[in-house]
Amino acid sequence: MSKPRQLHLGAFMRPVSIHTGAWRYPGAYPDANFNFNHLRKFAQTLERGKFDAFFMADHLAVLNMPIDALKRSHTVTSFEPFTLLSALAGATERIGLVATASTTFDAPYHVARRFASLDHISGGRAGWNIVTTSNPDAALNFGLDDHMEHDERYRRAREFYDVVTGLWDSFADDAFVRDVTSGLFFDPSRMHVLDHKGKYYSVRGPLNIARPVQGWPVIVQAGASEAGKQLAAETAEVIFAAHNSLADGQRFYADVKGRLDKLGRARDSLKILPGALVVVGDTVEEAREKRAKVDSLVDYANAIASLSIALGHDASKFDPDGPLPDIPESNASKSGRERAIALAKRDNLTVRQLAQRLGGFGGFAFVGTPKTIADEMEEWLVSEGSDGFNLMFPFLPAGLDDFVDKVVPELQRRGLFRREYEGPTLRDHLGLARPSNRFFAPA
Amino acid sequence: MSKPRQLHLGAFMRPVSIHTGAWRYPGAYPDANFNFNHLRKFAQTLERGKFDAFFMADHLAVLNMPIDALKRSHTVTSFEPFTLLSALAGATERIGLVATASTTFDAPYHVARRFASLDHISGGRAGWNIVTTSNPDAALNFGLDDHMEHDERYRRAREFYDVVTGLWDSFADDAFVRDVTSGLFFDPSRMHVLDHKGKYYSVRGPLNIARPVQGWPVIVQAGASEAGKQLAAETAEVIFAAHNSLADGQRFYADVKGRLDKLGRARDSLKILPGALVVVGDTVEEAREKRAKVDSLVDYANAIASLSIALGHDASKFDPDGPLPDIPESNASKSGRERAIALAKRDNLTVRQLAQRLGGFGGFAFVGTPKTIADEMEEWLVSEGSDGFNLMFPFLPAGLDDFVDKVVPELQRRGLFRREYEGPTLRDHLGLARPSNRFFAPA
Repeated sequence: MSKPRQLHLGAFMRPVSIHTGAWRYPGAYPDANFNFNHLRKFAQTLERGKFDAFFMADHLAVLNMPIDALKRSHTVTSFEPFTLLSALAGATERIGLVATASTTFDAPYHVARRFASLDHISGGRAGWNIVTTSNPDAALNFGLDDHMEHDERYRRAREFYDVVTGLWDSFADDAFVRDVTSGLFFDPSRMHVLDHKGKYYSVRGPLNIARPVQGWPVIVQAGASEAGKQLAAETAEVIFAAHNSLADGQRFYADVKGRLDKLGRARDSLKILPGALVVVGDTVEEAREKRAKVDSLVDYANAIASLSIALGHDASKFDPDGPLPDIPESNASKSGRERAIALAKRDNLTVRQLAQRLGGFGGFAFVGTPKTIADEMEEWLVSEGSDGFNLMFPFLPAGLDDFVDKVVPELQRRGLFRREYEGPTLRDHLGLARPSNRFFAPA
Repeated sequence: MSKPRQLHLGAFMRPVSIHTGAWRYPGAYPDANFNFNHLRKFAQTLERGKFDAFFMADHLAVLNMPIDALKRSHTVTSFEPFTLLSALAGATERIGLVATASTTFDAPYHVARRFASLDHISGGRAGWNIVTTSNPDAALNFGLDDHMEHDERYRRAREFYDVVTGLWDSFADDAFVRDVTSGLFFDPSRMHVLDHKGKYYSVRGPLNIARPVQGWPVIVQAGASEAGKQLAAETAEVIFAAHNSLADGQRFYADVKGRLDKLGRARDSLKILPGALVVVGDTVEEAREKRAKVDSLVDYANAIASLSIALGHDASKFDPDGPLPDIPESNASKSGRERAIALAKRDNLTVRQLAQRLGGFGGFAFVGTPKTIADEMEEWLVSEGSDGFNLMFPFLPAGLDDFVDKVVPELQRRGLFRREYEGPTLRDHLGLARPSNRFFAPA
């Protein structure tokens, strides 16, 4: 009897949580942005739960929001991903470590070196979440007045990826002979000078570090645009997606896996992991109460401003504790407006609750008991909505502890999720092959 | 009775050692460039020895040497400093962590963030070794065909430093009030937008991380040129110097401390730590034998090529096992030539031994017993040759273990070196004040 398809689980982390109300939740750590001990504990809990990877969210600027919203947001600061994940590498044994790095605001030689170094330090657990950085405030921190347009960013990203992976292949896996007797440290015929001269980058190489333990760190992307999906189909091994429903997930899954077919790539060489908030209770009611509680900690003035933008209509005049009234058509994005209206209806939310829901975390969520959450996850997996999830926790540490202590065992009982790591590397966890070296056949 | 002046000790590290023959020494770890476990052990040993800091050497390219020399050199690869030191932060408690970062090939926003993050992760143990990167091969890895000229590099370095330190001051130390009840995470009046527009850099800010634990990570420099010394006097808190003798050290010490006087800086606000190889034996003879042994592991063909360059004369025709013959004048650098001749005479070296000495590590060295080494270090300290040393070990782990187990206790007995760390931060170890924030007075 063959094993059922296996779930892959990442944790998409900010130090306090993705949810903007989380720092005020009872038992939360409001100082997690500055206190590494909390992050070490979270990573160790995720490793106890056999997660595939710890994904570190990142931004290259203080988030662009009005100061009255910003001053209430724990997202104003964070740790820098390379330093944080390297420190976590020293505090964990098995869990994968995925760092976000921008192709628009960093140099390929630095990025190639840092990921190779993290991969060596961690024994093969590094992953690179490739982002092209669309935040115009980031451009201003890197000497650019105008942010680069979308297609240009993606063309640069593709060349950047080619350079980085080429640099990782600078040395054959067997280049370093280290023959103490003869004094030969490495075989120069097993070193390749890249000498890349492209449209955007000119990089000679070789990289001054051995080939990563994994050959290449795992390549992760989150692009949802046409250019993003195509870049992912050509290069990614994990996609961090964002969907509103299983049906959305299935459409995306079929689209991207179809692109793999056309490119001659095996379907299981790319794992699709939609983001999902997960809120666990002993009853569905308790889970909903926890979510309502953390939502209620989102500042109302900011939340109503967000709702007004979503609706294209000033919501501050509505009765906060009444239902969402009918609203005339407007110029607002139709999808955002329809989504807000549907959400209010589905969950029977007051204006206040709807505003705080959208202001806290408006994306897809699993809210229920270990059994209902495992049921839903299983349905996504079986019906080809995803290969797993990149989970977010509504508050820390309790929201994470609940998932690891209650939902993971249920997934394990169903045979959907590992009970032990089967190998040492992130590629092993994800079931991804080690890439061959483009310049050297194995010896 | 006041305490005598205290020595400050850094360890200037490459994974295998600075000495090019070290990887072949009995008991050495030829795989240290790829094996983090060895580096963790070295850092923990240095911490046991109460060292002020672990300094990570760095280069932004494979070292520029003929391939026949390169293939015999363990310096061809290494770990990347931010990732390595962050991992070491997780494996140590007290020792300072100094990373080399280039002002020519990186962006000030990245550098400011990474050091701030390392400082938070390590509880205030980060230091920035500012280098301007003179290696032309590095330029080719970063898209530049011509390397920048020396003075231009230093002008950029000064502006880069101003931007980085300005970004570190983005938030007052008390900005993050984190008031769970009111929902105020930080006080926006305690955040400063840098908005730097200079000759070389345009950086808006603020930095998206809180002010470092130390205010600023400790500023380290190694410049020995006129521009380098002046930049150091204006900005550095530690100078990593290179001298050939105590007399050289005294001249440099008087020069730099005199510059501080002119700038109105306190003399003890900048510590001068010359680099020194340290080889410990139970007898002076044994120490010399250890050094001769590790020198003998340097490839002779490469060594003789180095000697020929130093002498400006083809040394390959000399009898390897005879004394250095008289050599006619040449166009070679007079100082290099005179130094080689003086070294051969002082230590009574054959041609082979002289070549391998220069090829292994040609700089200043302490070679002797715990007592003679402590005597020499004390003389440097007392006679204002330095404020301590940035030590290098001829081979690892034994060369490091010998120093920590035998020389450190002798220095402690003399009251010249701490028996315990007195505070948690690198500034505490070095006796350096925490910089005030240029934008905010203390609350």
